[in-house]
Amino acid sequence: MSGWLAIAGLGPGGEALVTPEVADALAQATDVIGYIPYVARVAPRPGLTLHASDNRVERDRAEQALALAAAGARVVVVSSGDPGVFAMAAAVFEAVEAGPRAWRSLDLRVLPGITAMLAAAARAGAPLGHDFCAINLSDNLKPWSLVARRVALAAAADFAIAFYNPRSRARPDGLDRALAILRATCGDDRPVLFARAVTTAEETLRIVPLGAATGDMADMRTLVIVGSSQTRIIDRPGTPWLYTPRSAA
Amino acid sequence: MSGWLAIAGLGPGGEALVTPEVADALAQATDVIGYIPYVARVAPRPGLTLHASDNRVERDRAEQALALAAAGARVVVVSSGDPGVFAMAAAVFEAVEAGPRAWRSLDLRVLPGITAMLAAAARAGAPLGHDFCAINLSDNLKPWSLVARRVALAAAADFAIAFYNPRSRARPDGLDRALAILRATCGDDRPVLFARAVTTAEETLRIVPLGAATGDMADMRTLVIVGSSQTRIIDRPGTPWLYTPRSAA
Repeated sequence: MSGWLAIAGLGPGGEALVTPEVADALAQATDVIGYIPYVARVAPRPGLTLHASDNRVERDRAEQALALAAAGARVVVVSSGDPGVFAMAAAVFEAVEAGPRAWRSLDLRVLPGITAMLAAAARAGAPLGHDFCAINLSDNLKPWSLVARRVALAAAADFAIAFYNPRSRARPDGLDRALAILRATCGDDRPVLFARAVTTAEETLRIVPLGAATGDMADMRTLVIVGSSQTRIIDRPGTPWLYTPRSAA
Repeated sequence: MSGWLAIAGLGPGGEALVTPEVADALAQATDVIGYIPYVARVAPRPGLTLHASDNRVERDRAEQALALAAAGARVVVVSSGDPGVFAMAAAVFEAVEAGPRAWRSLDLRVLPGITAMLAAAARAGAPLGHDFCAINLSDNLKPWSLVARRVALAAAADFAIAFYNPRSRARPDGLDRALAILRATCGDDRPVLFARAVTTAEETLRIVPLGAATGDMADMRTLVIVGSSQTRIIDRPGTPWLYTPRSAA
């Protein structure tokens, strides 16, 4: 038996957003490895071992997955969203680079998924319809000075900005500080989308002007998108639509 | 019969990357509207009308889709990748905002898809594993001065950068000009990924240093990712892996 490792994205939560490629890898796997709530999305079956672990052991998890695949297992590491965006794929490649040379010959594939900003944008309209950037506010491996500099430069570039992990345990005040930087450059009127648990039963969407946005509007399941100078709101019955036109001033 | 409009992403090309949500919408549709090669990916069947049009009529296409849905049809507008990223969703919302008030009460949904940068990144490793941005080089609605400014600020922010439409008819020299801006800030060593037609039979991946990257390495089916200062190459048998670690200097 020849082992392999797939680093797979389960999408934002709804089962209708799991790609057939990922479903197929899960159906063939002998081992599934990941953070507890993501592994909980995989149905148990005979012949499949589920390895669920806490959130702060990404590197251990990556090494376990590589070692199992090197020993002949068919391993799927699961992430929510897309594994390549602030998720497990980078942790696996860090482990590969530091690990035994034989790991570089493994059958290793990254299977993309619908990342949170695409799902949140779709539910709200099309706020990422023009140039945009994605910034992770959680990463405790990144100094705050770098985050602050990136947020200021993103505002200067007039990107729409997607903030991942806006209110993590590692950095609970990150979003408030980022919003303050943006208000200094962009004023108070820019629309801000708080999209929580999109495509699940707990989904909520809220749009507020930048001047009224506060960090406590987000939790660990929230994706925040701050519009560019061109982003527009379309009033309508129910939640308004938010979109960024293709043209730019 | 109550009409609806779904703006759906078909993903980068491989059928295993079409979400079940999109497949289900296509199965229920009476009308599919889009650019010729995307509509060609939808199987004809009785009761389904395929409306294929040229690339430069996004707004007309959006208005046609809205009018059909308002008249009771079940309409899917198809984009490749994700409809919210440099694709049809923004065009539809532009038409909604300018159109009859009744269009704001339509059952309108955006169905996300795997956008090109996620598919390209997955095939190469994890180059978008840390903060990144996405810039459309094609858009002839955007002045070059704004593109140049964004590219320079993205380099200053040390984002990994995904360039969409790097070599369009509207702006054939855009990528060469963007690469020149990046070389001035980032030097010659930054890895550049040219990912063409990923997940299709014509897929090619090529990684070159920024100093050796030229615009003619891309065509209209290519997605280009320029690494950040932290992006690394892992040598291995076959195409090397490219990834950006979670930590940052």
